[in-house]
Amino acid sequence: MTTSREIRLAARPVGMPQPSDFELAEVELPEPRDGEVLIRNAFVSVDPYMRGRMNDAKSYVPPFALGEPLTGGAVGQVVVSRDPRWPEGSWVAHSLGWREAAVSDGSGLLPVDPALAPVSTALGVLGMPGLTAYVGLLDIGRPQEGETVFVSGAAGAVGSVVGQIAKLKGCRVIGSAGSPQKVAWLEDLGFDVAFDYREADTREMLREGIDVYFDNVGGATLEAAIGALRVRGRVVACGAISQYNAGEPAPGPRNMFMLVTKRLRMQGFIVSDHDDRFPAFLSDMGEWLRDGRVHYRETIVEGIENAPAAFIGLLQGDNVGKMLVRVGPAA
Amino acid sequence: MTTSREIRLAARPVGMPQPSDFELAEVELPEPRDGEVLIRNAFVSVDPYMRGRMNDAKSYVPPFALGEPLTGGAVGQVVVSRDPRWPEGSWVAHSLGWREAAVSDGSGLLPVDPALAPVSTALGVLGMPGLTAYVGLLDIGRPQEGETVFVSGAAGAVGSVVGQIAKLKGCRVIGSAGSPQKVAWLEDLGFDVAFDYREADTREMLREGIDVYFDNVGGATLEAAIGALRVRGRVVACGAISQYNAGEPAPGPRNMFMLVTKRLRMQGFIVSDHDDRFPAFLSDMGEWLRDGRVHYRETIVEGIENAPAAFIGLLQGDNVGKMLVRVGPAA
Repeated sequence: MTTSREIRLAARPVGMPQPSDFELAEVELPEPRDGEVLIRNAFVSVDPYMRGRMNDAKSYVPPFALGEPLTGGAVGQVVVSRDPRWPEGSWVAHSLGWREAAVSDGSGLLPVDPALAPVSTALGVLGMPGLTAYVGLLDIGRPQEGETVFVSGAAGAVGSVVGQIAKLKGCRVIGSAGSPQKVAWLEDLGFDVAFDYREADTREMLREGIDVYFDNVGGATLEAAIGALRVRGRVVACGAISQYNAGEPAPGPRNMFMLVTKRLRMQGFIVSDHDDRFPAFLSDMGEWLRDGRVHYRETIVEGIENAPAAFIGLLQGDNVGKMLVRVGPAA
Repeated sequence: MTTSREIRLAARPVGMPQPSDFELAEVELPEPRDGEVLIRNAFVSVDPYMRGRMNDAKSYVPPFALGEPLTGGAVGQVVVSRDPRWPEGSWVAHSLGWREAAVSDGSGLLPVDPALAPVSTALGVLGMPGLTAYVGLLDIGRPQEGETVFVSGAAGAVGSVVGQIAKLKGCRVIGSAGSPQKVAWLEDLGFDVAFDYREADTREMLREGIDVYFDNVGGATLEAAIGALRVRGRVVACGAISQYNAGEPAPGPRNMFMLVTKRLRMQGFIVSDHDDRFPAFLSDMGEWLRDGRVHYRETIVEGIENAPAAFIGLLQGDNVGKMLVRVGPAA
């Protein structure tokens, strides 16, 4: 028998989640049966989209169940295997979420190569957030060399990769973030313009015009970006973290008619629809990381018991780069 | 010398245009010089987009100049020609606007074949509004057979053609309009569902879901349509007549985040970018008219002096089908 601690959803948050919306539980895991593996997690992921699943609302993924552990991205090592595809000692990414260990029947398991990069990157720059940036920017936004790309939430796991890919593709890149420390990092990454949206006027910062807006935040920033887009500009609708804890749905941009006058395209996407792009992404991103053309940061919180605090911190913008919770030893 | 009466912009409207924003003037036209033609207009067009040009705002077309005649679509007969390409007696469409007669240097002239259909159709079903419907629905909305298309302003010059093309392409079609008379016409045209948005709850009417929304009105209807769109739905952003006279820009849809969760695409367009589609459009639409597969209506106001009233009536929804002003004899 293996003991694992896990975080369960105790109550559906109203507005910003509170620690009392979560509960820590300890469970005994059964021995893996034929075709199953026991995984000891090293990192579990906290991601903004998880806020939506905490509501009891129909969406593209079903809501989390009350009293059940929160599922989501995690990376760990196979410690007991009854499936020859996943030998003991191998590293895997999975979606069983906020627990120290889990028994998997193999569904949704992905191999992770610890020789390529630290295993934590399977939850960040080489995982779902990285693929989100890659697909959203290249396939949805389709920037051309010489165009200007603006990304909000630019110091986050997705935004920081969006900006760096845009630079690689020959674009001018503007990024907004929520602290001087984040802005400094964006400057280190080679963003042409980086600003703190709490200090600067976003409209003013975009006054020279943009061609692609990669939207992670929604709200007033979206309105400012629509105003700044040039003719045939594009909005990649990826997230709206400024809205996730709004009690009432906030009014949308007042300048929607600019979609007509400027022939804009706004398009939303969900990364899981684009799994077919994972091999191309992994090949490109692996090369960019090896060549030092893409950099990443991680903000790591220690201990499964602190996953709720990490998640709340993520929604408050406490992270630089990818927010992770370390729950066990890593490769 | 030829006398022509014309309508000039006397003041920039604030909110709904008033008769006092316009003035009637009589001018003497010069004799056409080499390369010029004198056109005696039969019909001039009033179109919703003209409201935007009455503001002193930068947009995709320059604003109308105060004290100058309003330019826009018109159709007439060449009565004096100094250009062999446009023989006397031939019918032409042009963009010299709200006047009884005009001297043209040939720029922007298009031939009109009075044998194909009444010349007024060059301003409606066979002209800019028809091409708008064709390009917007087929190229931007890209409906598939069996999908549901919702069009607002459905009894207008554009909307009525959108709905009929969608039916031709095997779609289920829902249309909204602003009077029982309009709704009855939509039913005659074969719309599967037609409703008066002033009487019915749009969200309720769309509750079974839609795949494409062709937006002519903006505002609350756009929000309802975003709510009703199915996964991978599309919004064709064509116009926002509900907003054109708003003093303050109205808040946008509160459900913009559905672009992400439902992977929606919203795309605006301006028909003049798509002139290359005119030959294909004219071939298809000519055939559909001849075969009785597309029908049209016109609401005709008599006399150039009544062009402002026709335009104000258009913005108030007084028209069924294409709103026109008759200013001279037609073929």
